[in-house]
Amino acid sequence: MAKKGKKPKKTEKATIKKVSRKARIQEKEGPKEIAKRIRKMSEEIVKQIEKEQNPRFVTKQRGRGNVEFEEDKGIITLGNKSTTRSFLNIAHTKKFLQTMLVTSKTYDYLLHNKTASIREIYYELKHNIEGTKENTFDDQRESDSCIVDLEHSVDTIREKLNVHANPKGTLYGDITLVDRAHNNDKFNCLKLGRGGWSIMSRIEPNEIEIKQVNAKYVLVIETSAMYERLIEENFAKENKAILVGTGGQAARGTRRLIHRLHYEKKLPVYAFTDGDPYGWYIYSVVKQGSMALAAHSHFLACPEAKYIGMTMEDIKTYGLENVTEQMKPGDIKRAKEMQQYAWFKNKPWQQELKTAMNLKIRIEQQALANKSLEFVAKEYLPKKIKNKEFLP
Amino acid sequence: MAKKGKKPKKTEKATIKKVSRKARIQEKEGPKEIAKRIRKMSEEIVKQIEKEQNPRFVTKQRGRGNVEFEEDKGIITLGNKSTTRSFLNIAHTKKFLQTMLVTSKTYDYLLHNKTASIREIYYELKHNIEGTKENTFDDQRESDSCIVDLEHSVDTIREKLNVHANPKGTLYGDITLVDRAHNNDKFNCLKLGRGGWSIMSRIEPNEIEIKQVNAKYVLVIETSAMYERLIEENFAKENKAILVGTGGQAARGTRRLIHRLHYEKKLPVYAFTDGDPYGWYIYSVVKQGSMALAAHSHFLACPEAKYIGMTMEDIKTYGLENVTEQMKPGDIKRAKEMQQYAWFKNKPWQQELKTAMNLKIRIEQQALANKSLEFVAKEYLPKKIKNKEFLP
Repeated sequence: MAKKGKKPKKTEKATIKKVSRKARIQEKEGPKEIAKRIRKMSEEIVKQIEKEQNPRFVTKQRGRGNVEFEEDKGIITLGNKSTTRSFLNIAHTKKFLQTMLVTSKTYDYLLHNKTASIREIYYELKHNIEGTKENTFDDQRESDSCIVDLEHSVDTIREKLNVHANPKGTLYGDITLVDRAHNNDKFNCLKLGRGGWSIMSRIEPNEIEIKQVNAKYVLVIETSAMYERLIEENFAKENKAILVGTGGQAARGTRRLIHRLHYEKKLPVYAFTDGDPYGWYIYSVVKQGSMALAAHSHFLACPEAKYIGMTMEDIKTYGLENVTEQMKPGDIKRAKEMQQYAWFKNKPWQQELKTAMNLKIRIEQQALANKSLEFVAKEYLPKKIKNKEFLP
Repeated sequence: MAKKGKKPKKTEKATIKKVSRKARIQEKEGPKEIAKRIRKMSEEIVKQIEKEQNPRFVTKQRGRGNVEFEEDKGIITLGNKSTTRSFLNIAHTKKFLQTMLVTSKTYDYLLHNKTASIREIYYELKHNIEGTKENTFDDQRESDSCIVDLEHSVDTIREKLNVHANPKGTLYGDITLVDRAHNNDKFNCLKLGRGGWSIMSRIEPNEIEIKQVNAKYVLVIETSAMYERLIEENFAKENKAILVGTGGQAARGTRRLIHRLHYEKKLPVYAFTDGDPYGWYIYSVVKQGSMALAAHSHFLACPEAKYIGMTMEDIKTYGLENVTEQMKPGDIKRAKEMQQYAWFKNKPWQQELKTAMNLKIRIEQQALANKSLEFVAKEYLPKKIKNKEFLP
C-alpha cells in the first residue's frame, strides 16, 4: 500500500484519440460560422418557396435505430440515416413552422450575442397564431425537439446556437479561466475557498478560455460530498489534480469542459463514481457519449478516459464487505443491459459487471469513510493512480 | 412603467427583526463552544453510569405536534416538548448506542477540524458489534436521526457539529468572501465569469468571512436559468444586487448564507420564484423557516424577506395570459394547505392563493421571456423594487 501522504511521482501520460479534421474545425466554430450555416439553410428554403417548390429541410434520424458505436474513435455516434421535413405535408406543417421560428430566433441570438435557456426560447416563441386558435407551441417538448432538429441540420451543438440547458457541476484546482464574453473576468479555481467555480451551462472556446492549467490529470467525481472531501483533504494541491464534481450525471456544460481539458490541455481523465449501474453509466457517458446525444459525442466525449473506482475488487482489497449495499432489482436489470453495450464488451468490464451481479451488491464512494475520512485522499486514489489500476 | 435601462435610485432600507441575545450568541459559536457542550452532556452520562443510574439524555420532540409559529419573531420554531432517551429501555437501547457513537464522532471532528457529510459519518460508524450479528447502523436514516437528536440536545445546527448535507446553490455579485479554513482564500464573486461561486454546504462565520459587500439587496432566484439570465443582462452590477441562485428549494448552506447577509450586512432579501405552490414554498422557507427544521429557524430564516414575484397580478399587468400553465391537482391541494398556514394568513397572500386557485393557473419566471429576454432585468425587477411592489 502506498505510504500515507506520499505523492504519486508519475502519472499516466494522456493518450489522446485522434479526431477528424472536421471535428477539429467544428470544435472551434463561433457564432459567425454557425450563423452563416443557418443563413445558408434558410436561403435554400426561401429559394424553394420562390420556385413554388415544397419547402423542406433535412435533419438526422434519431433513436437507437440510427445509433452506432465507432470502435476506432471510441465514441457513440449517430448514423447517416436522415429525415426530410416538408411544409406541404399536413403531418409536418406545424413542426416545419416551429422549426423555422426556432431557427430564426437562434440566428437572432447569434447576431446579437444573446444566449437563452431552452425554457426561455419556448416562452419567447409561444404565441397565438393570428386569426386562429392555435398557439405556435403548447409544450416545451415541441421547441426542444426543434432545437435538436436544428442541431442536426446545421451539424453543431445547441451551445453553439447560444441555447443551453441548466448548469450543474463544480470545478476546483489550479486552472485559470477567462470569461471573454463577460468583462474578461480571469480567475483561478484553486483560490475560491472550498466551494469552487460553478460550471456554466455553456463552455464554448470563443467565450471561455482555458488560460492556464497546472495539473497532471482531471478527476471526475460523482458525488458532491466526495468532491468536498477531496478539497478538504487538499487533494487537488498535493496531487496536482483538477477536480470536477458532477453531482450525479454530468451536465452538458460539465462534459464540454472535461472534453476540452482532455483535448486542449492533453490531460488524462479519470472517473471516480459509485460502483453501481448509475456510476458506471456516468463514466460511460463521459467517456464515449450517450445514445441520446449520439450526434454530439465529438464535442462531448473523452474516449481515453479511465475508470478509477469504486470497483468490486476494492471491496476485497480494503475489507469493505460490511459497507456494501444491496443491488435493487432495477440495478440488476440495468447492469444486464450494460453487459450488452458494445462499449462495455471488454474483459475487465464484463468481469466487473458479472461479479457485481453475482454478489448483488453495490459500493458507494463514501463507503471509503469506513477506513477513515482521509483514506480516499491519502491512500486510495494516489495508489490507484500510481499503479495505473484502472478499468478501461 | 420604468424607463428602459433606468437604474432604481432608492431601495427599501432593510428592516431587521430583533433577535434574542441567545440567538446572537449561538449564531457565532465555533467548534470550541460546541465541543464544550458535547463534553458536558457526555460527562453527565458518565456520571449517571458511575452512580449506576439509567443513562439518559434529553432531546426535543419533533413533528408537527411540537411546531409553532412565533408571530412576533416571524419564524417557525420548535416548541418546548422534550423527549428523554434512556439506555435501559429495550426500545431505546440501540438508538442510545447510536447517538453516543455519533456524539463521540462529531466531538472528534470538532477537536481535529474535520468536517464530514452525513453519508460519510454513517459509513464511518457502520461496523459489526463485536460478538453479535448486529451492525451499529443498517441504514443512513438511523445515523441521520441521531444527528438531529444531537442538534437538539446540544441546541445547535449540524453545520456547527462539522457535519453537513450536500451543497447546492450559486452566488454572484460584488461580495468578497474569505475562506479562513482554507488558505485564507479571498475572492470577489463578481469576478468569476458568468458561473459564480458554488456555495458550500457549510457557511459558518468562523470559517467563511463575509469580508465586504457592495450591494443594496439580495435577490434569491429559484431557477438556474433565471440566475444566468440576470448575469447575462449585467443585472447585479447595474442594480448593485447580490444574486443567489437556489436551483429549486434552497439548500441549508444557501439559506445560511442568505441569513447571514441579511443579519450581518443588513441587506434586504427579495425572493424571485415561479408563481406556484413550489415557488411560494421556497420563499416561505427562506423567510420563516420550515417545519422540518423548526428548531433551527433562528440560524436560517429571514423573517423580513419580501416576495417580488411571479404574481397573478403580473399576468394581467404584462399580458402574460398566453404563457401561463395549468395547475395540476397536486398544485391545488398544496395551495389549499398553504392557505391554512399561519404565515400565509395575511390579506395579500390569501388573495394571491385564492386567485391562483380560482384561475387554476401557475406562471413561471421564464414566462417573462415572452416580452423579451431583457425585460426581466431592464423593466420587471427594477420597477418592482423601485415601487416596492412586494408580497409580504
